[in-house]
Amino acid sequence: MFLYKKLITFQQIILNLKKYWSEQGCIIIEPLDLEVGAGTFHPATFLKAIDPKSKIWNAAYLQSCRRPSDSRYAKTPNRIQHYYQFQVIMKPSPENLQELYINSLYNLGINPNIHDIRFVKDNWKSPVLGAWGLGWEIWINGMEVTQFTYLQQVGGIECNPIIGELTYGIERLAMYLQNVNDIYEIIWYFTLDGNQITYGNIYLQNEIDQSNYNLKYTNSKFLYNNFDYHENMCLQLIKFNLIYPAYEQIIKASHIFNIIDAKKSISITERQRYILRIRTMSCNLAKKYYNLRLK
Amino acid sequence: MFLYKKLITFQQIILNLKKYWSEQGCIIIEPLDLEVGAGTFHPATFLKAIDPKSKIWNAAYLQSCRRPSDSRYAKTPNRIQHYYQFQVIMKPSPENLQELYINSLYNLGINPNIHDIRFVKDNWKSPVLGAWGLGWEIWINGMEVTQFTYLQQVGGIECNPIIGELTYGIERLAMYLQNVNDIYEIIWYFTLDGNQITYGNIYLQNEIDQSNYNLKYTNSKFLYNNFDYHENMCLQLIKFNLIYPAYEQIIKASHIFNIIDAKKSISITERQRYILRIRTMSCNLAKKYYNLRLK
Repeated sequence: MFLYKKLITFQQIILNLKKYWSEQGCIIIEPLDLEVGAGTFHPATFLKAIDPKSKIWNAAYLQSCRRPSDSRYAKTPNRIQHYYQFQVIMKPSPENLQELYINSLYNLGINPNIHDIRFVKDNWKSPVLGAWGLGWEIWINGMEVTQFTYLQQVGGIECNPIIGELTYGIERLAMYLQNVNDIYEIIWYFTLDGNQITYGNIYLQNEIDQSNYNLKYTNSKFLYNNFDYHENMCLQLIKFNLIYPAYEQIIKASHIFNIIDAKKSISITERQRYILRIRTMSCNLAKKYYNLRLK
Repeated sequence: MFLYKKLITFQQIILNLKKYWSEQGCIIIEPLDLEVGAGTFHPATFLKAIDPKSKIWNAAYLQSCRRPSDSRYAKTPNRIQHYYQFQVIMKPSPENLQELYINSLYNLGINPNIHDIRFVKDNWKSPVLGAWGLGWEIWINGMEVTQFTYLQQVGGIECNPIIGELTYGIERLAMYLQNVNDIYEIIWYFTLDGNQITYGNIYLQNEIDQSNYNLKYTNSKFLYNNFDYHENMCLQLIKFNLIYPAYEQIIKASHIFNIIDAKKSISITERQRYILRIRTMSCNLAKKYYNLRLK
């Protein structure tokens, strides 16, 4: 029982990070209710990074992410098609962002003086979002737990000022903090009578079912048709200055592309063309939004 | 400044409810990353209510909700097509659920001895989910803030045991606690230098854009085609026992129907037929899931 009480649960890690970043001046935003591949897709990052009227914007949120190409039928202990990212976005990036990050680890019970914390240079880019940044992967005792990026460009537009972006892999952190090697063994919560509810209790069957669906049952013709539809709709909505729904068309097209890509039924040339089509949408939208907000 | 410090912000209300219900034995789950009309659609309610193996299941989560038929271009102070529900689900329903609920209000700073809190009988049903329950709307000083339901049936299957379901309208609670009459004036967060970020700062433009999109730009042919697709896919996935992705087809079909319905381009008879089609999916899925979990 003593061990149970000391162990930080999955939901406590999330709560702890929200509390910490709120105290550092970040508004706590709720996740986007769409299928996205990364927290960067949330308007609280993408649109705010571009917005010339938001000179200061500090936010944090937990985003559910889906990556169909990581569908493994729950047979691998740490590669999954659905997981969570805890995202922190600070505009402008404060000079002490690395220190703030290290303190967030302290706060979770990780002592950087004891544990091997390494910043491994790894510049980040998202071709579909027309975004890139200078940054590092952060490794604790040999496991990547965070991506740390100074965003330079989003939607093809230079970031002014430069934006700090932190993306914690919450499951990775939990595996480390709870000393488990299997994602499904992460303890999410202890009930009042001391029973544990694990990550596997919540997501194991989902992971198996969704892997089957992503790789075997999705219909390619439907996916391609819907991609075209969202692309057309996006460009039309941009014309009418309807930024938010236009942006959501990009997100939907992007998720469709991710499923097509996961099925490996697309040629390298075609694949490149689809990425370019999403990138074009992203850059058109970003340009329109930037100009609208300049007025 | 003193007033600022005393006022409970939107994000503090959410945090406060999560903390309170966690202490009452509820696991804190993250929202579903799909467009849904209500928190009941989350698998943590729908599937758990049916699951014969989950004899005990207590959970709470904040769910982003979209109701296209409430699109009002942000011209009404308290009817919006996107908002949040804080959902509590307790299986079996504890005998003191009303008391637990009242204490959650105490905990938010609402004293039931001072404020007029009324339970107004209002049985709840969701025709598309094949679900209904006995319950009450809960009004504080003349404003509905919560739906309190004892779920009797979900997916056409009798709930055994009866399940307690609480659905807080977080924006309503915030308007009450912050004494504002306009949803967009709700204070979400105070930055470290005391500037307020309001609900309107985050969602006003989104509400206008999405209302335009829902009512004027969505393509009916596309919606009807996609509805058919999700229905066929759902029934196919049920055959293959792929419960989670099958269930998500119902959610997608249901959201499409909500947009069609919002556009008011459907006859009463056709409307009824579509509701029945979703209900049929829900009941087929529920039956399959129940039988699979009985084994």
